[in-house]
Amino acid sequence: MYRNSGVTYPRGFKAAGISCGIKKNNKKDLALIYSDSRAIAAGLFTTNRIKSASILVDLKHLKKPNARAIFIISGNANTCTGKKGIRDSQAIVQSLAKSLSLKEEEILLASTGRIGVFLPITKIKRAIPNLVNHLSEASNSTAQAILTTDKKIKEATIATKIFGQGKREVRIGGIAKGAGMIGPNLATMLAFFTTDALIEPAALREALILAVRDSFNRITVDNEESTNDSAIILANGEARNRKIRKGTENFLKFSSALNKISLDLAKLIVADGEGATKVIEVKVKGAWCQKDAVRIAKMVAGSNLVKAAIAGSFPNWGRIMAALGRARGRANPNLLDLSINGILVFSKGEIRNYQEKRLRESLNKKAIKIEINLYSGKSQSTAFGCDLTEEYVRINKE
Amino acid sequence: MYRNSGVTYPRGFKAAGISCGIKKNNKKDLALIYSDSRAIAAGLFTTNRIKSASILVDLKHLKKPNARAIFIISGNANTCTGKKGIRDSQAIVQSLAKSLSLKEEEILLASTGRIGVFLPITKIKRAIPNLVNHLSEASNSTAQAILTTDKKIKEATIATKIFGQGKREVRIGGIAKGAGMIGPNLATMLAFFTTDALIEPAALREALILAVRDSFNRITVDNEESTNDSAIILANGEARNRKIRKGTENFLKFSSALNKISLDLAKLIVADGEGATKVIEVKVKGAWCQKDAVRIAKMVAGSNLVKAAIAGSFPNWGRIMAALGRARGRANPNLLDLSINGILVFSKGEIRNYQEKRLRESLNKKAIKIEINLYSGKSQSTAFGCDLTEEYVRINKE
Repeated sequence: MYRNSGVTYPRGFKAAGISCGIKKNNKKDLALIYSDSRAIAAGLFTTNRIKSASILVDLKHLKKPNARAIFIISGNANTCTGKKGIRDSQAIVQSLAKSLSLKEEEILLASTGRIGVFLPITKIKRAIPNLVNHLSEASNSTAQAILTTDKKIKEATIATKIFGQGKREVRIGGIAKGAGMIGPNLATMLAFFTTDALIEPAALREALILAVRDSFNRITVDNEESTNDSAIILANGEARNRKIRKGTENFLKFSSALNKISLDLAKLIVADGEGATKVIEVKVKGAWCQKDAVRIAKMVAGSNLVKAAIAGSFPNWGRIMAALGRARGRANPNLLDLSINGILVFSKGEIRNYQEKRLRESLNKKAIKIEINLYSGKSQSTAFGCDLTEEYVRINKE
Repeated sequence: MYRNSGVTYPRGFKAAGISCGIKKNNKKDLALIYSDSRAIAAGLFTTNRIKSASILVDLKHLKKPNARAIFIISGNANTCTGKKGIRDSQAIVQSLAKSLSLKEEEILLASTGRIGVFLPITKIKRAIPNLVNHLSEASNSTAQAILTTDKKIKEATIATKIFGQGKREVRIGGIAKGAGMIGPNLATMLAFFTTDALIEPAALREALILAVRDSFNRITVDNEESTNDSAIILANGEARNRKIRKGTENFLKFSSALNKISLDLAKLIVADGEGATKVIEVKVKGAWCQKDAVRIAKMVAGSNLVKAAIAGSFPNWGRIMAALGRARGRANPNLLDLSINGILVFSKGEIRNYQEKRLRESLNKKAIKIEINLYSGKSQSTAFGCDLTEEYVRINKE
């Protein structure tokens, strides 16, 4: 039963993943997510000044919220490919619109892979009918097809009850791709969600913004932000619930469900970071403001020296202090507390009398928790990162 | 003849470096720089919120510009050591003032090494008379004593002619320590300069600010900013030149000489970055403003993915595009040009027809030059970085 595993969990969605020859060894490299009926969409994209041709097409198509299909290319970013890159994207949209009998504006694109290489457009166009033929309610070949250096597929699902016209179960499913280039702003990755909720376009967009803010924007693998980051959601209303509108209790229910699976996917991305062996959770409490809390949490989670120390189970907490101090957030060493895996090591300007051996042993765990209480205010934030190993460098040297 | 090699090149300076047992295997770990006669000083320090006790002492002592000695500890940062850390620093100052017959305010401190460990204060105090006895005009044991994971000592000297009362030769010498934790703001390192110039305190400070801005603040090894960054200069006036004042031609001569040796030292730091095998020079031209030029140059030079690609001689210039795009500077892909080692790879939105083999071969060089012309304005900046190798991770795991 793959039905429960990702974007085909909500009613009325099909998906497919096949190989067209972009990647070697017949690895899957094209994916398609499709709604049987009319649907609306929302999308968030990288803030990098250099954007993929796929994203430029999406920004145009999303001027109207109607969309029914997402086409994903893995192994080629179609970025920095100039006018030909745009023409190639348009050719894919045209070809797919024809195969699926959709309007061109109802198709969204995403891509990931090497920058500055033209798409093998003939191969892709030739593969489109085959991809459409593979559409089914099993989604894990789709989750597989969007990966690059990821080791594992990333899928998550959730259901929630929406009130009105009796309780209706609304379903949300998602798949994601991460691994390298996970950075501090709209963490450099692809995430696709589907839902059978009936929801206003503005509410759908708002829910996506909130979910991304507290999940993908709180993870870091290497502080990079890619040119291709995309988070897209399709909603087809097949749950026939009372329409979800902004500012209602039903919106909160939908939004918190979307938040939850986004965070699940974000954590899967971090755990599968290039070369990662440990997940680092950095919780900052008592910050002067939200911005300070986020900055400090992400700076610590993203510090190469902190990450390398944790890879080596090296209890050098001074590196955490150095990272939090350079985050340009209000941090007073004479006030703050620092704990690692529940062991208080530094408090209010003074080193605590902790057992170094116990700390060192606790760093052998696969999940490392760093907690910083700044005692400067009431804001808090949590960031997630992974350790830095020789393997990361090896992967990125070629 | 060590006289020409560093901080004892200017007239009237002595220096020493010895071992007191902070580092293992009798490695040198204490250094002293001393002016025979009255001198003035200027210092610039980390902007990290967490600062070493050494820096807290300096900030106090530099309220008056008079100083005659710099005492440097290597192997222990004396940071996050609370009230005891401050008391230890004061004890060192007292002991040294007595040995050298100086006022306490005439002594400046610097330290580098592990954070959160108390100084072995008894050992240090016991070693001070010995350190003072070693003061001589040879400076390379001093340059040696300030190092941590550096492989090579870093020294530079320069002489310039100052007009008035006949031409007088003014000398400047410097030593530095870098290796790890070299980051984008006051690049996380120690640098000490001496000069025999007669110069106003305000002019000395201004010259130091300009020199640091265009050298140590333009290098990056791992985007970290340490809690102990310090750049200090002593000037004793022994050249008996006409006093250098701000806004004069003589100031420009002095300032450009100090700039030059600062840049020399900064490049030595990058070349000796932890695990580094190549130096990366990123020149950004045609930026809208100076801030944009600096941000983009540093973002590219500091990108883990760019650094790893260069380590592997991997001609993936898309990573440079991704890094420049996320720098929050005005960068339009349809205007800009990107060259690597003189080979134009991307121009005005389009991939250039370059020979990949030639590019790949050129990346085997030890010095990699990246040039970006944004065609958005007239500002320019250059940043220096190094490649990212498995060795960096290995060093920082323990």
